[in-house]
Amino acid sequence: MTLFSRTLRCQAAFRRFPVELSSPGAPGTFNNIRKLSQTFSRTSCRAPVEAVAVRGKMNNNNYPLDYSRGGIKEFNQRFLDSAARGDLAEISGLLGAVDINVKSERGWTALMFAARNGQTHVISILIERGCDVNCLNASGQTALEIARFWNHSEAASVLSQHKQGVEFDQIHNYFSLNPLYRASEMRKDTAGLQAAKNNMSTKFVLFSDQKPFLLRSEEPSRKYKFAVFNINQLGTELLERGTVIFLGLETWDPDSNAWFAVDIKEELSDIGPKFFPEGKYATPFPVTMQMEPTQAGIFAEAHSVLCWLDKYKFCSTCGSATKIAEGGYKRVCQNWECSSNKGVQNTCYPRVDPSLIMLVVSPDKKDCLLGRQKRFPPKMYSCLAGFMEPGECLEDTCRREVEEESGIKVGRVDYHSSQPWPFPAVLMLGCIAYARTSALKVDTSELEEARWFSRAEVAQMLAGQHPHGLYVPPGEAIAHQLIKSWVASSFSNL
Amino acid sequence: MTLFSRTLRCQAAFRRFPVELSSPGAPGTFNNIRKLSQTFSRTSCRAPVEAVAVRGKMNNNNYPLDYSRGGIKEFNQRFLDSAARGDLAEISGLLGAVDINVKSERGWTALMFAARNGQTHVISILIERGCDVNCLNASGQTALEIARFWNHSEAASVLSQHKQGVEFDQIHNYFSLNPLYRASEMRKDTAGLQAAKNNMSTKFVLFSDQKPFLLRSEEPSRKYKFAVFNINQLGTELLERGTVIFLGLETWDPDSNAWFAVDIKEELSDIGPKFFPEGKYATPFPVTMQMEPTQAGIFAEAHSVLCWLDKYKFCSTCGSATKIAEGGYKRVCQNWECSSNKGVQNTCYPRVDPSLIMLVVSPDKKDCLLGRQKRFPPKMYSCLAGFMEPGECLEDTCRREVEEESGIKVGRVDYHSSQPWPFPAVLMLGCIAYARTSALKVDTSELEEARWFSRAEVAQMLAGQHPHGLYVPPGEAIAHQLIKSWVASSFSNL
Repeated sequence: MTLFSRTLRCQAAFRRFPVELSSPGAPGTFNNIRKLSQTFSRTSCRAPVEAVAVRGKMNNNNYPLDYSRGGIKEFNQRFLDSAARGDLAEISGLLGAVDINVKSERGWTALMFAARNGQTHVISILIERGCDVNCLNASGQTALEIARFWNHSEAASVLSQHKQGVEFDQIHNYFSLNPLYRASEMRKDTAGLQAAKNNMSTKFVLFSDQKPFLLRSEEPSRKYKFAVFNINQLGTELLERGTVIFLGLETWDPDSNAWFAVDIKEELSDIGPKFFPEGKYATPFPVTMQMEPTQAGIFAEAHSVLCWLDKYKFCSTCGSATKIAEGGYKRVCQNWECSSNKGVQNTCYPRVDPSLIMLVVSPDKKDCLLGRQKRFPPKMYSCLAGFMEPGECLEDTCRREVEEESGIKVGRVDYHSSQPWPFPAVLMLGCIAYARTSALKVDTSELEEARWFSRAEVAQMLAGQHPHGLYVPPGEAIAHQLIKSWVASSFSNL
Repeated sequence: MTLFSRTLRCQAAFRRFPVELSSPGAPGTFNNIRKLSQTFSRTSCRAPVEAVAVRGKMNNNNYPLDYSRGGIKEFNQRFLDSAARGDLAEISGLLGAVDINVKSERGWTALMFAARNGQTHVISILIERGCDVNCLNASGQTALEIARFWNHSEAASVLSQHKQGVEFDQIHNYFSLNPLYRASEMRKDTAGLQAAKNNMSTKFVLFSDQKPFLLRSEEPSRKYKFAVFNINQLGTELLERGTVIFLGLETWDPDSNAWFAVDIKEELSDIGPKFFPEGKYATPFPVTMQMEPTQAGIFAEAHSVLCWLDKYKFCSTCGSATKIAEGGYKRVCQNWECSSNKGVQNTCYPRVDPSLIMLVVSPDKKDCLLGRQKRFPPKMYSCLAGFMEPGECLEDTCRREVEEESGIKVGRVDYHSSQPWPFPAVLMLGCIAYARTSALKVDTSELEEARWFSRAEVAQMLAGQHPHGLYVPPGEAIAHQLIKSWVASSFSNL
């Protein structure tokens, strides 16, 4: 059974279910969620990313700007023009008024226009002011590739130095930007955890039946964040009646603030709106795809563990009831004769299900394979994927799943990056797979369609400019990052 | 809790438990197991590897030859000398009498001597005859590196062409060489599986309480293989009383031979010796580290699934009894009101626990970090490792585990290869981690010791030539491959 069949049922939520956080301007159809995603991406998430800069670099997804608003359009055009001309004075004046990553209709940023014309001084200023050097235009080019193409070697040098200048150049996918230190050594310290719960600086995030209690972020874009509670607001009785898990500390310093998640039953759920009347308990998917990235990382940890605690209440070895231990990271069988209490058993620990998701590249390297589940929203195509099985290595899972679903034989498999997918606790291992054959034989029980797409067509899908409206998942999904990475890297093969 | 604490308890078996397959010459102490491993590695596993050549390339682990046997020693010396001299006639004559990968006391193969002296014609013949081009000498050099060092460009070219000439150059670790096609689409076809069980050409491997029933391999080296049964030998009644799982087909052709594993209780276990009096039920670890590699892959699938079926007999959601379905790959709750029977639940499917194992490289790239668990056999050092947690990406697990256990901060993390570790169902994701700090602060609750080792010292440990007898795990463990890979790749940094 593929990953899609088992968990990407969630994706159907894109289409079927309204977003629970209702408010004017956020109706819950898929297309509106997609627009939310675009807004989210376009306005970027610099602050949270800076907060986790030491942990890696996050890829942003950029969409063409909506030009419907008159005045802004003029500012943006002037900004892009001045970058192309190298007019530093005008650029400096406009930087406060425009989004530094604003794009032209063809998806060109100011950095790209500067790169096109070798305006090295403009490039330096834009980078210094935090622009995204990894943006792609509608042809799938980065500013660096544009500078190289037009032989502006000094500009190319500045651009490539910057890429190497980050502490370590490694993708961090959405849901993996949890800033907390998990402090697993504290989990067995029951008294220490109890003391931490009663500390007024300790932070609690709230769930009701695994639905997070969220607020609108203060940022102008329509994103969500956790409502954060303290012990006085929740009260010790509520903690005793709910499921409480220890998420970690704000830093490696044991005296730093602790974070907990509390999952309560519906009858207790008034506690959220009592302190935050504007907050709502939200069905997690797809709302949590629109959270502030660091908070989405905290959500990923909390939601996965809470779902496990809820679905694994009984001992699988003897059927007896179990008790939560170690800050929520263990379940102990209450039948002391049970063999799961002897030695170390994986039955007691939270489950993480490894799965593979792969962009398959054609033998001539010019095309990639994308597929459609029947449950996908119309016109969306994505990477193939499937769960790993016992006794398999990652590369063989990739070869097996691709051959099962599409009939394509895969040779080499390169790991790309990974992403926790907290519905409920999947580890997505993203790969680029090199096909040795190209004749398709699609398994229609798994896929509605799978076909080869040219690099140019995929670049259009990424940029939201496909003539027939085809598109790929948003930047918060690892599939998007795999596709984008291939489009960018294959530019030099053209 | 680290991986070591949770599953590498098995490694203690190396030291504590005798090998159950008793026979003259195979006493079960760790040191003898280690010798077995050396024999296993030295005589290589060409036939099984060829059988899975299409699936990738297996790394061999080579140890210096035992020179205690007089006559062989002379042949070997003549063979190595003739390779150095370029004497093709003598080489051809000796090839039938010696192991083509035989090593000198410093760990040099004939290929290395030929590379040292630029004997390109000898190199071609040795490669044609199937020698291992990836062997390392006691200094951690490959033949290619030796040829490059001595400026024999033609020889280096032949050696590097060969490396690229394999269909795809990708490591396949031990336990991942399962040659069967899993045919997951057949699992739901109950009638088809029943018919397959009754087919006389179907093959059964036998377990009793998860212990595999093994024979000595006919190969001169002391390796093990499954005893393979047919339906007439086992009988349908025994299949009904045991736990039967469908392992797969011999090829992608649905008419090819099916394989099943049967796990029976001790009271039925006479069936094995009845047909194979020389066979034994073996405690899986460490005996299965000495199996023919393709059979070890079949063991990995069978053992992981059988252990899961045994430990997960009750529904974790409601505590009711469950029933095995889908050829052993699913458990269904017998309480039809249970929520695990509604929608798709990961509670019903076999569990695979992803874990990280990492070779940490020092900031100056000259040293690597190895550690010792108290349970390790004396003088063995290995990579750090730990389980992934819900909501983590692979790279962050690596950074967290290394910092927790050693105090070292890690920057970039590169994926290397993966290995199923079927005790009971771990997925080992092997990485190379680049440290940003070097001051150690070892967590002594997790590790007895951790320290930096120079590349030269690690090369000695790999080659079994460390002056104080320190060593690393054998080639069947992914830790060995990570270490070996770093030693080989860092040669050019010296």
